[in-house]
Amino acid sequence: MKKLLLSGGTVINVFTGELEKANVLIYDTHIVGVGDYTAEDADLVEDVTGKLICPGFVDGHIHIESTMLTPAELTRVCLPHGTTAIVADPHEIANVCGKAGINYMLEMSEGLPMTVYIMLPSCVPATPFDESGAVLTADDLRPFYANRRVLGLAEMMNYVGVVAGDPDVMEKITDAHAHRRVVDGHAPLLSGRSLDKYLLAGIRSDHECSSPEEAKERIRKGQWVMIRQGTAARNLTGLLPLFDEPFSHRCLLVTDDKHPADLIADGHIDSIIRAAGKAGKSVITAIQMATIRAAHCFELQNVGAVAPGYKADLLIRDDLETVAVRDVYCAGKKTVENGKILPFAEPVAKDENRKTVLNSFFIDPLTKDDFRISESGSKCRVIRIMPGQLLTDEWITEVDRDRDDGIDVARDILKLAVVERHMHTGHKGIGYINGIGLKKGAIASSVSHDSHNLIVIGTNDADMVVAANRILSMGGGNVVAADGKVIAEMPLPVAGLMTTAPAAEIAEQNRRVRQAVHALGAPETVEPFMNMAFVSLSVIPSLKMTTQGLVDVNTQTRVPLMINDVSR
Amino acid sequence: MKKLLLSGGTVINVFTGELEKANVLIYDTHIVGVGDYTAEDADLVEDVTGKLICPGFVDGHIHIESTMLTPAELTRVCLPHGTTAIVADPHEIANVCGKAGINYMLEMSEGLPMTVYIMLPSCVPATPFDESGAVLTADDLRPFYANRRVLGLAEMMNYVGVVAGDPDVMEKITDAHAHRRVVDGHAPLLSGRSLDKYLLAGIRSDHECSSPEEAKERIRKGQWVMIRQGTAARNLTGLLPLFDEPFSHRCLLVTDDKHPADLIADGHIDSIIRAAGKAGKSVITAIQMATIRAAHCFELQNVGAVAPGYKADLLIRDDLETVAVRDVYCAGKKTVENGKILPFAEPVAKDENRKTVLNSFFIDPLTKDDFRISESGSKCRVIRIMPGQLLTDEWITEVDRDRDDGIDVARDILKLAVVERHMHTGHKGIGYINGIGLKKGAIASSVSHDSHNLIVIGTNDADMVVAANRILSMGGGNVVAADGKVIAEMPLPVAGLMTTAPAAEIAEQNRRVRQAVHALGAPETVEPFMNMAFVSLSVIPSLKMTTQGLVDVNTQTRVPLMINDVSR
Repeated sequence: MKKLLLSGGTVINVFTGELEKANVLIYDTHIVGVGDYTAEDADLVEDVTGKLICPGFVDGHIHIESTMLTPAELTRVCLPHGTTAIVADPHEIANVCGKAGINYMLEMSEGLPMTVYIMLPSCVPATPFDESGAVLTADDLRPFYANRRVLGLAEMMNYVGVVAGDPDVMEKITDAHAHRRVVDGHAPLLSGRSLDKYLLAGIRSDHECSSPEEAKERIRKGQWVMIRQGTAARNLTGLLPLFDEPFSHRCLLVTDDKHPADLIADGHIDSIIRAAGKAGKSVITAIQMATIRAAHCFELQNVGAVAPGYKADLLIRDDLETVAVRDVYCAGKKTVENGKILPFAEPVAKDENRKTVLNSFFIDPLTKDDFRISESGSKCRVIRIMPGQLLTDEWITEVDRDRDDGIDVARDILKLAVVERHMHTGHKGIGYINGIGLKKGAIASSVSHDSHNLIVIGTNDADMVVAANRILSMGGGNVVAADGKVIAEMPLPVAGLMTTAPAAEIAEQNRRVRQAVHALGAPETVEPFMNMAFVSLSVIPSLKMTTQGLVDVNTQTRVPLMINDVSR
Repeated sequence: MKKLLLSGGTVINVFTGELEKANVLIYDTHIVGVGDYTAEDADLVEDVTGKLICPGFVDGHIHIESTMLTPAELTRVCLPHGTTAIVADPHEIANVCGKAGINYMLEMSEGLPMTVYIMLPSCVPATPFDESGAVLTADDLRPFYANRRVLGLAEMMNYVGVVAGDPDVMEKITDAHAHRRVVDGHAPLLSGRSLDKYLLAGIRSDHECSSPEEAKERIRKGQWVMIRQGTAARNLTGLLPLFDEPFSHRCLLVTDDKHPADLIADGHIDSIIRAAGKAGKSVITAIQMATIRAAHCFELQNVGAVAPGYKADLLIRDDLETVAVRDVYCAGKKTVENGKILPFAEPVAKDENRKTVLNSFFIDPLTKDDFRISESGSKCRVIRIMPGQLLTDEWITEVDRDRDDGIDVARDILKLAVVERHMHTGHKGIGYINGIGLKKGAIASSVSHDSHNLIVIGTNDADMVVAANRILSMGGGNVVAADGKVIAEMPLPVAGLMTTAPAAEIAEQNRRVRQAVHALGAPETVEPFMNMAFVSLSVIPSLKMTTQGLVDVNTQTRVPLMINDVSR
């Protein structure tokens, strides 16, 4: 192990916000000196004259599954953007594969140059209507706290459970605190008394704030606010006032869900810092949020600063404003040079966990009969997609069951099926959806929040069968089929959620899938796979399709597809 | 359990520094709501119209032993001043009684209305020259982390051990981190490379800073700076610049060592806040240091703020500036009303630990022979006290051994003895001291940092015997004797360090002892008991007396009392 001197640079001091001319001495994995060290103190000298030395950025809340990449591939994408640590919630893979999914993510991220911290998924399954691949109780989660990379309990979405004092929910929270870990929140639009009730459980952050008023109330009541800027949810502009005092010191920066194409085109945490700077806010303040604030939020004692005793996760940068990263050091080792990622050893998961995540479909090949609607009646409930939103509403209309089993492309009434794929139950929900706009063919996906059952939308049963069965044969992914053939596909063989392919490849596959779906008639204003991914999530109003049929989200009750007597 | 509404007040929000008109709802031990709650939400309403509602203050570093009070009595003194939590290092009692001493402090503070957090004494014994009552290794300390009130490892004074990587020192530090606890520092005047080396161990605070430059370097390098204002060490004035940004958010307020008379006359953390305000600094900033900053430093998740889910430790105050406290709530229960402490149940220590701390003298009654100097020689080393300082220097002079065994009151050369009292070893160091100024009589004490052996200074052997033996019969304390009789005394039967008497009584006893010692000739500029308490501590330069004789602090070697051949 040698001593490395970074000589001639200017350190961004995140404790004070000052820029300090100082040399930085690194020994092995840690920073051992900041000050007037010279070449005589070191075995190696790296001249960084005129450059900035910045702590590596931390993403305080991310679902790796949403990037569709393995932790190693995500590392290759994120490190050149200066992210040296992420706090990941493996909520999606846990809903498919349970403990094996969490273990797989821990194993596949062990020893990566980018540190992957894990928050334990708090809500598996996400709702009582979800038929997920696993149920994780407090007893299941507890042993994971033995791992130092496990920082706490991830976003607690079960507001009702928290407020009602549900024993398993409270045990999960109590366990996190007993292990001196933190509990993240997830409670959009909660305020006043409702918020107070939720906070009683000691939930100390939220990443769902969309307005300054909402965020300021959270900060005043002791929560950390995670300013989220991902692919779908983009809260930065709305939350710019938080970059001013007295709020900025209680904020961090997160992406939550960001797709690979956006990561490649736009960047990661660096892009949020850059955007804040362009919007007239202090880049230093944004960097503090992305470094030492994240460390404080998660009680990481030696991360997030360029100081003696801190982990040598740091960035060599040319200037403050562009946030462009030249070189990156992770635990003292250069991992990015001139913007290019250097090779690193990839971790391998244990066989048992790898097999589990690669074999996550427990379902027989489907036939046209599987998509026949068995209920009878004169009118039916159609799920209506609202453009650009995840909200849906209910449209009650007549369908002609004798013609194409009720499918009516002219009125954009397509068939929708959600097929349970974890437990071989044969459960399925079949109905109709409006607003997708396909004129022919069918689409299918294994990404369907939060249980990730098989979901299919089509203009005819035959193409639905083709698309669905292709998902099965790939072990997961997104498929577009037409005229009895697959015309575009993106394999996601890891739990049906992630790929083992490089980011550029998955981004290209994703582009082709989108192109294909629009070629089949879906208007450019609609993202069918995005809508499809949320049409089964019975927490977003108002009408959703689950493996057990339609759910009225507002009343949290199941409702029948067909309505026989409209006067009732 | 009833719901209590504090109605009509203004909350000091320590997250933002704002003052907010809000009602506060308390249920049992915690704050459950802050906002527009009304009488209908509560069982009881307390009208605090026009009053401030402030989080209770936290003392981030205190030795309870220095107050000479039991934790319960200290609670009675501190609560009316608004201190609802202290972070105590039982270093002194641990040096006398080892694990039993720590357990005694934990037991005697269990369930008190003022929360007593404990940091584990890191350096028992404090130096290799110390003959303490116990040696505490990492193995001894580790089990204490099972107690949730144990927040970490206390002030790491062993700079050499840290830098050299002494295995037991490193194990103590590693254990604290492994239990997700913090490590406090103690490294006065350390800077630059020496500081960097010390910080590598992950030592995250210091309370010994005396100049803004020293403190700012600590903050820039990631330490929390504890601004100390006690009885002897008074750093507030020197550190006032820290109350400004960008430094204030990395500071907390501590007393370290404060005597009961000062606590009664002056107050506790409130007095530091008040003084900062009088010096022109923001009282709100000072309150933030005394509350939420302390909570952050020690990673206390639900302490230090008036917010939902936080412990209902709060103060009802009339105004911001005087920091006067009207009522105090601890865990939701009123403990101070109109400035008067309310009765509370006192904890009782386990018999075994109580017996250990109350029987801490293992030494036979002393006779004049015990104080005879056995070495012979023509010249000798006299410890010279420097007025108003704990530093000493060496004065080499001739003494007439045939007359009063070398004592020479005219030249203020008095006899000094340090007698081992823990292990019945019979070890003792006897020599001479200059600068105390006694004209007759003798003084003795069991408070003698950090091993707290029996220490005696006298103008004649007979009075030394009287004073020393009175210490033995009291089981510890401070004594003044003259003409063969005790003329003033302060019993400290708990480990020879603390009293079970009320604060006012010990303050009065202390006043009488001081009066007596000055009546025997010690000038008003000298505090003989203070100097005596540190004359055995071989870390403060330059000549000290231990149970094994004189130590040259600068060379860390023993030196003989008598010098036979001055040319050598």
